[in-house]
Amino acid sequence: MITHSYEQCIQACLECMEACNTCYGACLKEKDMDMMVDCIRMDRECADICSFVAKSMQSNSPFAKQICQLCAEVCEACGKECKKHDHDHCQKCADACFRCAEECRQMAA
Amino acid sequence: MITHSYEQCIQACLECMEACNTCYGACLKEKDMDMMVDCIRMDRECADICSFVAKSMQSNSPFAKQICQLCAEVCEACGKECKKHDHDHCQKCADACFRCAEECRQMAA
Amino acid sequence: MITHSYEQCIQACLECMEACNTCYGACLKEKDMDMMVDCIRMDRECADICSFVAKSMQSNSPFAKQICQLCAEVCEACGKECKKHDHDHCQKCADACFRCAEECRQMAA
Amino acid sequence: MITHSYEQCIQACLECMEACNTCYGACLKEKDMDMMVDCIRMDRECADICSFVAKSMQSNSPFAKQICQLCAEVCEACGKECKKHDHDHCQKCADACFRCAEECRQMAA
Repeated sequence: MITHSYEQCIQACLECMEACNTCYGACLKEKDMDMMVDCIRMDRECADICSFVAKSMQSNSPFAKQICQLCAEVCEACGKECKKHDHDHCQKCADACFRCAEECRQMAA
Repeated sequence: MITHSYEQCIQACLECMEACNTCYGACLKEKDMDMMVDCIRMDRECADICSFVAKSMQSNSPFAKQICQLCAEVCEACGKECKKHDHDHCQKCADACFRCAEECRQMAA
Repeated sequence: MITHSYEQCIQACLECMEACNTCYGACLKEKDMDMMVDCIRMDRECADICSFVAKSMQSNSPFAKQICQLCAEVCEACGKECKKHDHDHCQKCADACFRCAEECRQMAA
Repeated sequence: MITHSYEQCIQACLECMEACNTCYGACLKEKDMDMMVDCIRMDRECADICSFVAKSMQSNSPFAKQICQLCAEVCEACGKECKKHDHDHCQKCADACFRCAEECRQMAA
């Protein structure tokens, strides 16, 4: 039911969702909270849209492509924010975001 | 950040989410729609709670265990409904539901 | 924190979410299920995106406008599908969808 | 389709969702971020479960009561956390949480 290309993009979304949720939880335990505010916000935005787009592809939503396009934009922004921070969870999250953005852009094209 | 046991349960939840969303999308294309009504409803309930509980474990929610307990109940019910139908997507979904129910029960314990 | 224009759009989204979820639940109890398949699918798509966009406006998401644009598109499509069906819950849902689409378009502009 | 008692509980959940999302967005702009960490986390947990339970009641989910029970617990915890903070958005949020907890408890009973 799920095409090959869908599968790859779904996988990237689920990994990005996990990286963002993990980074969110970890950021809330960091000491330099003032530094982490934008990261916390972006992590949650990104985790939520990744979960949303995975569902849309898995269930053959007629809006999957449009949601992918939006997800690519959010992932790109989240990746750029996470990239600024040295914490391991932020760097891992940035990588997952950029991969997911790339997959979603291809899907939306 | 994510403990070993969490990881296994998260994985089961994400697989169950995918199986349920796929089954949902496929059921909406089946011919014997009157037969599939309960399956459609349960698939969506189950996919949504699986996504919810995965997020809660990934982000270290203080309510992860309680959400797991609820998820186990929904997975069990969805699995029993899917099990009644011969479609390949229903049988696969039932298996994923029962596995996820078991993982969630252990996590909630 | 929530501007006047936001408030009006949030209200339309929450009403559309309720109309779609109600229509979804009611469609699953109708007798002519084969007729209702597209309505069931669209209701759920639309309810989910309405909930998503309400959250984004309420929490001052930097992506609120883009999500509104997508929501307008989904609401328009759901409204058109619901409009085809004589059931009271479908007609009410169509009205809520068109109102929400209009509010979201204005917000996205 | 939606019974009177459901309607009242749904309304409380939607108001609590709005209060929590608003408080979340506002907390992320406060200066004393270290103080607000638990509030940020609880706001988001509570907003998400409120949205989830509203959907379940609106769509006649067979699990509405169990989700209400869980929601009551989350609302109670979020209200207690918000109550500690003098910010107007926190105090309003606490009130909405306690009202919603009460409605959900009655629904779950």
